[in-house]
Amino acid sequence: MPFCKNSRLNIPNLLVGGAVKVEKKELLYEGKAKRVYRTNDENIVWIEYKDSATAFNGEKKAEIAGKGRLNNEITSLLFSKLKENDIESHFLKKVSETEQLVKRVNIIPLEVIVRNFAAGSFSKRLGVEEGKKLNYPLVEFCLKNDDLGDPLVTDDQIDVLEIATKDDVSSLKDRAKEVNQVLTGFFQEIGVRLIDFKLEFGKDLEGNILLADEVSPDTCRLWDIETNEKLDKDVFRRDLGDLNNAYETILGRLGGPTHV
Amino acid sequence: MPFCKNSRLNIPNLLVGGAVKVEKKELLYEGKAKRVYRTNDENIVWIEYKDSATAFNGEKKAEIAGKGRLNNEITSLLFSKLKENDIESHFLKKVSETEQLVKRVNIIPLEVIVRNFAAGSFSKRLGVEEGKKLNYPLVEFCLKNDDLGDPLVTDDQIDVLEIATKDDVSSLKDRAKEVNQVLTGFFQEIGVRLIDFKLEFGKDLEGNILLADEVSPDTCRLWDIETNEKLDKDVFRRDLGDLNNAYETILGRLGGPTHV
Ligand SMILES: Nc1ncnc2c1ncn2[C@@H]1O[C@H](COP(=O)(O)OP(=O)(O)OP(=O)(O)O)[C@@H](O)[C@H]1O
Ligand SMILES: Nc1ncnc2c1ncn2[C@@H]1O[C@H](COP(=O)(O)OP(=O)(O)OP(=O)(O)O)[C@@H](O)[C@H]1O
Ligand SMILES: [Mg+2]
Ligand SMILES: [Mg+2]
Repeated sequence: MPFCKNSRLNIPNLLVGGAVKVEKKELLYEGKAKRVYRTNDENIVWIEYKDSATAFNGEKKAEIAGKGRLNNEITSLLFSKLKENDIESHFLKKVSETEQLVKRVNIIPLEVIVRNFAAGSFSKRLGVEEGKKLNYPLVEFCLKNDDLGDPLVTDDQIDVLEIATKDDVSSLKDRAKEVNQVLTGFFQEIGVRLIDFKLEFGKDLEGNILLADEVSPDTCRLWDIETNEKLDKDVFRRDLGDLNNAYETILGRLGGPTHV
Repeated sequence: MPFCKNSRLNIPNLLVGGAVKVEKKELLYEGKAKRVYRTNDENIVWIEYKDSATAFNGEKKAEIAGKGRLNNEITSLLFSKLKENDIESHFLKKVSETEQLVKRVNIIPLEVIVRNFAAGSFSKRLGVEEGKKLNYPLVEFCLKNDDLGDPLVTDDQIDVLEIATKDDVSSLKDRAKEVNQVLTGFFQEIGVRLIDFKLEFGKDLEGNILLADEVSPDTCRLWDIETNEKLDKDVFRRDLGDLNNAYETILGRLGGPTHV
């Protein structure tokens, strides 16, 4: 039985290939930005984007009405555009303004960060001026562990602690760089500089690595090419203005369904 | 002109091969643990070990009379023993209880850390129990920069920021692992477990990478194999007892000239 009217949808069943009704079942996990629900299909989870904004490992918090819709719309749009460019992800279908269906994966416990320009923790830790272009796109890994504050980990640390295999690390790097190349192009076209971003990958039931989680202004640094105006979560982190305005700008420029 | 009686010594000149008098000249650099003096030979510096103890990036400080002698004796002894095992270093000659002559190098601005067991910042950052044996010896790099608190850097960060070349990083890793193998053996023989340690390397005038700085209880974690008693700077960091006692134990077991 579905929980509510819009929780019943026809999408192709991934395993048997036929059309089945996907039903939203119980909450599996509530994160800082999203809720993940089980469905009647063990290969599919139902993701609900929340209106919460958090920063500095949860130390700064706010409710921002409309943020969930913006991240859901932008992520849906970007994953669809990536797919048109042969980059697969967990994304299956947007099911409402704030919800989407995705392939269920076991998340690899690494935040995969790609940096084109110095910013944020990279600038602070290593003393590199924000906005400095890097010689080439840099991939970093942080251990996904809120209690430890998502610490940076080296390739050798990942290997010795068996967080992921060397092969997986190497393939995560390659995949992240491909995503970066395509995303950089999308944003360039709409006058936005992709400074850096965070990806998560997971393994599906067959053990294939799949791009997962979200790609949104919550997880990317996006600067207007002309003005360097920040159009991402730094607006919230650093109290630079209205977060919804910034995110709505990104959604609008990407050709998405804006509310303004 | 030498500054004092014991600052005039006969050691073979590195460049011309003849015997010349090495004279202590002006102070080049004063660090937290050592003073580095120029000599009349541009390839040689005169190192004086101080009685200062510092920890937590200089936040905790103390003067401990006799510590300079202990680190100078232990470093001289270990560099000599390494040389007998075909591991070259900058070390040339002990010139007094607290002083030694070393080949002058340009220090590569990386702290090269080797870990056999989890401890210290590794345990804290990554949530691994202190004393846990790692699957294999791990090499880490930290950027030598006190203002930034010597942050951990990944191989890719080192490369993109041009801190060192990929070849140098790879050769630093190999060298550090060799040193680890030999040092682990020395300490094993004297009933001490080599938990982890920090090395510095430099480049000599010809551009060859050379092991430099010091190898002492200030830069190693050394635990008694039987009792796990800490015989290193953690005695100071964590107020575990008398630092000189611990260092004297190491010097004594290594067969050095103890004062007890
Ligand atoms: N396809 C997927 N299958 C299963 N879990 C997923 C999938 N995509 C993302 N997730 C996980 O769902 C959760 C989304 O919640 P959210 O982004 O709010 O988490 P968070 O607060 O960032 O916390 P954390 O990521 O540390 O768990 C994350 O744990 C994310 O890794
Ligand atoms: N062979 C060498 N030639 C030139 N400099 C050296 C050599 N060996 C060590 N050094 C440098 O001499 C200084 C030794 O001083 P000390 O260990 O007290 O420094 P420190 O307080 O640890 O500070 P830092 O290492 O950050 O400069 C260090 O900067 C070290 O890198
Ligand atoms: Mg998240
Ligand atoms: Mg030092």
